[in-house]
Amino acid sequence: MFISFEGIDGSGKSTQLGLLRTWLEQRGYRIVTVREPGATHLSESIREILLSNKQSITPTAELLLFSAARTHLVETVIRPALERSEVVLCDRFVDSTTAYQGYGRQLDLREVDLCNSLATHGVMPSVTFFIDVPYEEAQLRMQFHASPTEPDRMERSGRDFFERVRDGYLAIAEGDPQRFVIVNGVQDRDRIHAEIVAHMEERLG
Amino acid sequence: MFISFEGIDGSGKSTQLGLLRTWLEQRGYRIVTVREPGATHLSESIREILLSNKQSITPTAELLLFSAARTHLVETVIRPALERSEVVLCDRFVDSTTAYQGYGRQLDLREVDLCNSLATHGVMPSVTFFIDVPYEEAQLRMQFHASPTEPDRMERSGRDFFERVRDGYLAIAEGDPQRFVIVNGVQDRDRIHAEIVAHMEERLG
Repeated sequence: MFISFEGIDGSGKSTQLGLLRTWLEQRGYRIVTVREPGATHLSESIREILLSNKQSITPTAELLLFSAARTHLVETVIRPALERSEVVLCDRFVDSTTAYQGYGRQLDLREVDLCNSLATHGVMPSVTFFIDVPYEEAQLRMQFHASPTEPDRMERSGRDFFERVRDGYLAIAEGDPQRFVIVNGVQDRDRIHAEIVAHMEERLG
Repeated sequence: MFISFEGIDGSGKSTQLGLLRTWLEQRGYRIVTVREPGATHLSESIREILLSNKQSITPTAELLLFSAARTHLVETVIRPALERSEVVLCDRFVDSTTAYQGYGRQLDLREVDLCNSLATHGVMPSVTFFIDVPYEEAQLRMQFHASPTEPDRMERSGRDFFERVRDGYLAIAEGDPQRFVIVNGVQDRDRIHAEIVAHMEERLG
């Protein structure tokens, strides 16, 4: 089972991933958690480049870098874990690329889809939780974060960008209702978790 | 005018690029020289990852990383230089990807072509000099290089790999005879330069 979490920064998706992880572990599942980009030595090097404020990166270069990190992660971590029948929880996956690079940076969606298929070679989540939060709410949460950090290169892309990203996510979800579960992220975190668990119980039967 | 130099490591292509650069400069041309991957801050970071012996990189990740470096180089250096009517001399370009990742690593050639078109968005050399040298000769030269260095990750790929790369170059050249000039690299460097110059004089009219 391969589950991904999607949402704009500050949506609370990483928190929800952690809560679901604990819930699954308590039920005896063996879990592999990965974050994108990252989780391998190579991907961490790429992540560093992508989030650095020091250099400009053209949108197509950004697309290809995210895809490079992803294909490495798929082949060295995700596919082997799935073959060992472990549950893979992924903090961001291909939908991030479609939402951020496709809708956000307004790259040609066909080019984005090509990169996504090249990067995954068919390894796709069976469930994707999209934690939906409006931009203002996400910004507010980031400001009042326990350990506020300087915004990284992606986070500094501005309001219009994030509105396009959110609309992008909603468009992707609409196009793939079997896989996508849209969760209202403007709720208490335990209520969000309960919604996700209810959905998981249904899937696990 | 956009000219690229191709060949396996140790073929002498970088030396020939330097000689042609001087020749063109003496004729009053303004030149921009770039090497791939590299030439921009971003591409140098990617180059470091690619040539590092420290990490394993899957073939598709390698393809996408080279493409990321290239698209950035095309948009920030090559295209602007061509628009200023400067001559661009490039040490490796898309044909390296087709030869090394396509033929060498035996990736799907259609996937390689897709990445190449994504990376170039139509910016292609008008002339490509392929300096053809057999693997043994290239190896020998690298060993007796004035300042021998540890072979990098690409250079350690072994004999069969480089034979496939060379065959790949010859196949690409055969498919694009208008653009490709195959130069016998097992000659005195001044004779090779003279051949290249003769070709350039013909092109420049």
